[in-house]
Amino acid sequence: MKYVSDFKWKKGIKVHEMVEYLGEVGFQSIELKKASDVIVKMKKNSAKIFLTFTSNMVTSGLRGFFAQLIELGIADVIVTTVGGIEEDIMKATGEKFAIGNFDSDDVELHEQGVNRVGNLFINNESYMNFEDRVMPMLDKLYKEQKRWAVSEMLRKIGLMLKDKNSILYQAAKNDVPIFCPAITDGSFGFHLYLFQQKHPDFIVDVVKDFGNILYTTSHDEKKGVIALGGSISKHHAILCTLLHGGAEYAIYMTTAHKTSGSMSGATTDEAKSWGKVKDDSDVATVIGDVTIMFPLAMIKALEQLSKEGLLK
Amino acid sequence: MKYVSDFKWKKGIKVHEMVEYLGEVGFQSIELKKASDVIVKMKKNSAKIFLTFTSNMVTSGLRGFFAQLIELGIADVIVTTVGGIEEDIMKATGEKFAIGNFDSDDVELHEQGVNRVGNLFINNESYMNFEDRVMPMLDKLYKEQKRWAVSEMLRKIGLMLKDKNSILYQAAKNDVPIFCPAITDGSFGFHLYLFQQKHPDFIVDVVKDFGNILYTTSHDEKKGVIALGGSISKHHAILCTLLHGGAEYAIYMTTAHKTSGSMSGATTDEAKSWGKVKDDSDVATVIGDVTIMFPLAMIKALEQLSKEGLLK
Amino acid sequence: MKYVSDFKWKKGIKVHEMVEYLGEVGFQSIELKKASDVIVKMKKNSAKIFLTFTSNMVTSGLRGFFAQLIELGIADVIVTTVGGIEEDIMKATGEKFAIGNFDSDDVELHEQGVNRVGNLFINNESYMNFEDRVMPMLDKLYKEQKRWAVSEMLRKIGLMLKDKNSILYQAAKNDVPIFCPAITDGSFGFHLYLFQQKHPDFIVDVVKDFGNILYTTSHDEKKGVIALGGSISKHHAILCTLLHGGAEYAIYMTTAHKTSGSMSGATTDEAKSWGKVKDDSDVATVIGDVTIMFPLAMIKALEQLSKEGLLK
Amino acid sequence: MKYVSDFKWKKGIKVHEMVEYLGEVGFQSIELKKASDVIVKMKKNSAKIFLTFTSNMVTSGLRGFFAQLIELGIADVIVTTVGGIEEDIMKATGEKFAIGNFDSDDVELHEQGVNRVGNLFINNESYMNFEDRVMPMLDKLYKEQKRWAVSEMLRKIGLMLKDKNSILYQAAKNDVPIFCPAITDGSFGFHLYLFQQKHPDFIVDVVKDFGNILYTTSHDEKKGVIALGGSISKHHAILCTLLHGGAEYAIYMTTAHKTSGSMSGATTDEAKSWGKVKDDSDVATVIGDVTIMFPLAMIKALEQLSKEGLLK
Repeated sequence: MKYVSDFKWKKGIKVHEMVEYLGEVGFQSIELKKASDVIVKMKKNSAKIFLTFTSNMVTSGLRGFFAQLIELGIADVIVTTVGGIEEDIMKATGEKFAIGNFDSDDVELHEQGVNRVGNLFINNESYMNFEDRVMPMLDKLYKEQKRWAVSEMLRKIGLMLKDKNSILYQAAKNDVPIFCPAITDGSFGFHLYLFQQKHPDFIVDVVKDFGNILYTTSHDEKKGVIALGGSISKHHAILCTLLHGGAEYAIYMTTAHKTSGSMSGATTDEAKSWGKVKDDSDVATVIGDVTIMFPLAMIKALEQLSKEGLLK
Repeated sequence: MKYVSDFKWKKGIKVHEMVEYLGEVGFQSIELKKASDVIVKMKKNSAKIFLTFTSNMVTSGLRGFFAQLIELGIADVIVTTVGGIEEDIMKATGEKFAIGNFDSDDVELHEQGVNRVGNLFINNESYMNFEDRVMPMLDKLYKEQKRWAVSEMLRKIGLMLKDKNSILYQAAKNDVPIFCPAITDGSFGFHLYLFQQKHPDFIVDVVKDFGNILYTTSHDEKKGVIALGGSISKHHAILCTLLHGGAEYAIYMTTAHKTSGSMSGATTDEAKSWGKVKDDSDVATVIGDVTIMFPLAMIKALEQLSKEGLLK
Repeated sequence: MKYVSDFKWKKGIKVHEMVEYLGEVGFQSIELKKASDVIVKMKKNSAKIFLTFTSNMVTSGLRGFFAQLIELGIADVIVTTVGGIEEDIMKATGEKFAIGNFDSDDVELHEQGVNRVGNLFINNESYMNFEDRVMPMLDKLYKEQKRWAVSEMLRKIGLMLKDKNSILYQAAKNDVPIFCPAITDGSFGFHLYLFQQKHPDFIVDVVKDFGNILYTTSHDEKKGVIALGGSISKHHAILCTLLHGGAEYAIYMTTAHKTSGSMSGATTDEAKSWGKVKDDSDVATVIGDVTIMFPLAMIKALEQLSKEGLLK
Repeated sequence: MKYVSDFKWKKGIKVHEMVEYLGEVGFQSIELKKASDVIVKMKKNSAKIFLTFTSNMVTSGLRGFFAQLIELGIADVIVTTVGGIEEDIMKATGEKFAIGNFDSDDVELHEQGVNRVGNLFINNESYMNFEDRVMPMLDKLYKEQKRWAVSEMLRKIGLMLKDKNSILYQAAKNDVPIFCPAITDGSFGFHLYLFQQKHPDFIVDVVKDFGNILYTTSHDEKKGVIALGGSISKHHAILCTLLHGGAEYAIYMTTAHKTSGSMSGATTDEAKSWGKVKDDSDVATVIGDVTIMFPLAMIKALEQLSKEGLLK
């Protein structure tokens, strides 16, 4: 039996020390420490790791952290939404997102051509620049072939970027596939549509990509899911592992609650129903803002994995 | 200036009377009444109405209500996730979902072949029956043509169903298109994949469907969005209306909060930044479980629209 | 086993019919129906009913509903916070609270002398009028005796009010005690302090009132708790029933979640640990805004109790 | 204008470095960094600092951190609920709280004599030991005088404890008053009641203590509020500063949202309505679990204050 112990600050305390102590504090701090331990366990047991996140996390500075994690060999498969793809490309091609306010005057922002994502701002100009950059990319792709599975298209685009903080770039370089089941649900979708208007034989084959995600793993391989936020990115990773008998390890971090019956709020309790999770030490659900919770849990795991020589 | 007034029960009180009174109670009850008024306003001003919902709402009994709303001419365009499509077809072909418990023993459920969605249960058998029913449907579609936009495929499937409580059936019958930007993110996606393995020239054209949703409305037409829950269904409807200059009316109902910067938690404040919303009486955000909030607001609106002869 | 059934609107649908149907819809709608059933059960089994609510609900129009419930014999004991006491007195003496907006400009409101409680507004003037009214009341109390238990003081004040929509008035008239363990945490506390400055032997005896709440019930009597919102009002009622071996029935309605370990978010699962709850049909936790959830569940119960002649 | 920047892990990263980087990440991470800055500002400008927390935080390991903060001269006034008082005394006299699980079987826990607070466990035995320890304390107090203001009583009890990790001990030693407006709302209240039964002239004077909190500060002095969680502890500190014209600085950390109109969910926007907050850099609201958010923000502030020689 473990007991609550008094938390104390000591000068210069490191993140991994703090997370270690948080494991004996209470409420979500205990779950956070558990999540960190599960990540280490996944990696030590050579599980194939599915990392999923929503687009607002790519709007945020977590984007560089995701790229770093791919580089370090933490993530084997990425699932995200199309906004995450768009904003990674924008940042890789020089766009900057400003830090604003949750309670900004939205009418005023509109007049200034500013789009608000929580307390972050994206200029209309960034979307226009994105269009200018993405169209030549589609041209190149089309010249190569007419019919593209999404993850294959994203791999090619990743190779066209030159930014080591880019998710697409690092994923392409490290042979980590990126899946995006709703590729048309964003301005990228609009550009694909305009392109298809000019080239009716241009096809984005989402069905083929379902086969691609299935082939990333197998029934026999150990599998782990790190799902940040909810949405189809979380659902898609769970679906894929389920079709292979379920994941052995799972971490969900979210601000949603299970009481509404939504996918975003579903907890790792359900993971137990997959029949492969052996005990409570293989899963953790952390309730809280991912921009804070994830770096904490992940950094604690990275320090440990680094010490044991388990990072790329 | 309106004032808070004391709420009192009177025997046999009707839903629309209660919602009327709730408008003078406080907190979310005021927003609920506002939402009801905005729905009436949308309809009276002949706005094209985009109704979006997540799949867990189709798991719930709201499914029949959505079908009824389509029949009554409330919804002009539907956007949902693939789980919603699957479960509507399951129910239309005889499957039943049981009422369970949020805190069920998930390991035990797994042994019984039961899948849990919040406090609702779906048997594995229902998924197997779904497979048996959907495969012949894909055969029929394939015989007709090889390349399908999603909404066109869903329309054909709707016509194959014989259930007036079915969303797909009513939508097909009433010429209301259903969009589903992540059509592969569910067991339906797996069946599409298996089908394509046998018929490599079978194509689900999501890019073409982006054009289809764009053509449902125009810059000049008034547009209203009723977004229930978050996810890509909400995002996709907003995206479409934005590409036509923004919606004039918007109602969001959700359990998510704006503090995490997620799409699910984004409020109708942002709608003001679209530049078309004239004043606060055109938008409402209601925080709460949609299975309760939506029937309340909608029934109040239906009674009023019915009285004014504005229902189909 | 109960099954999900399709919800349909029928013209003129009544609140109790809707709540009945909601019991087969899903997620919180099912819990809501359960809560309604537990209220009926409490009453039928002659449990002593503890009704607790926070002050913001008295700011809202629920105040008149609470008074009505006392009149109808639903509540046997009331626990609330001092803000609830103050605002009930304000309303009983003519003050009106305006309906505003969650996102008002608070600096501007300050200049206008307006205090905001969510989307409701209270004028500074109302607080000043409250002071004018409460001081003579304290004079009267002091003339009678020097040392007052809180609930006894509130009973006397209730008798001085002449408003059948007043909680204090109905409670005093119907011999329902009102407990308020933090009587000084509001402007009423400030007035008590000013009064004591002039009359140093004036004593508010909170310790004695603990005995008073203990004597409202006994170990042998059946007990039910209806806790609306969290805070010390909820905690105090649970504490009292626990000291008598625990309640047999409990309903919690709240927007808080259990994941933070707070009292506000504690669910009725814990009630099972009291050892008296026989089965799941005796407790219900509903997540959602009380201004909507409580009238729904309560009205359904009232219609049924009225039919069976169980209302006062 | 500040911009989002890519977050990257570097080996051995310290907590204060991480929080610094989080200020450019997004969503709550930005608010967290702001909160840290406001704490530094409060202290630098010699504001009187009101630190408030709910009892579950004292159940958790934050208890030792609060004691340390008092020792370091961060908090000038403490407001908490009686559960916090009880559990601080329990821990100071040797009781240990176990780390459990949010989803424990509560019926089983009951049989083992275990009380659950979220994922933490308190044994019945600890409550019995508490009774044994608190009764002699009340005897000593009663011998000294019959009528006690709450904060004066807590100061005396603090001096009887011998635990440098104790909040009451450090507060007493450092002349930091502890206010607890609902002193009877816990097992301590029950013991006070039993004691008064034997000694009817024993009086706990809550009205006098309202004067005491008022005298901790003045209209002219700068004031800051750090409110962790909601409840009356938060409300009481705000009330006191408001009666002196409002605080200049305020930080709220909570899992509650403003949409329900509750005190727990009220944000620091309202603080602007007090008329003393000069600009946005003086207030911050952080949504999230306090056991994680508070140490992060506070440690960043402590490192800075330590460097500038502003700690005791």
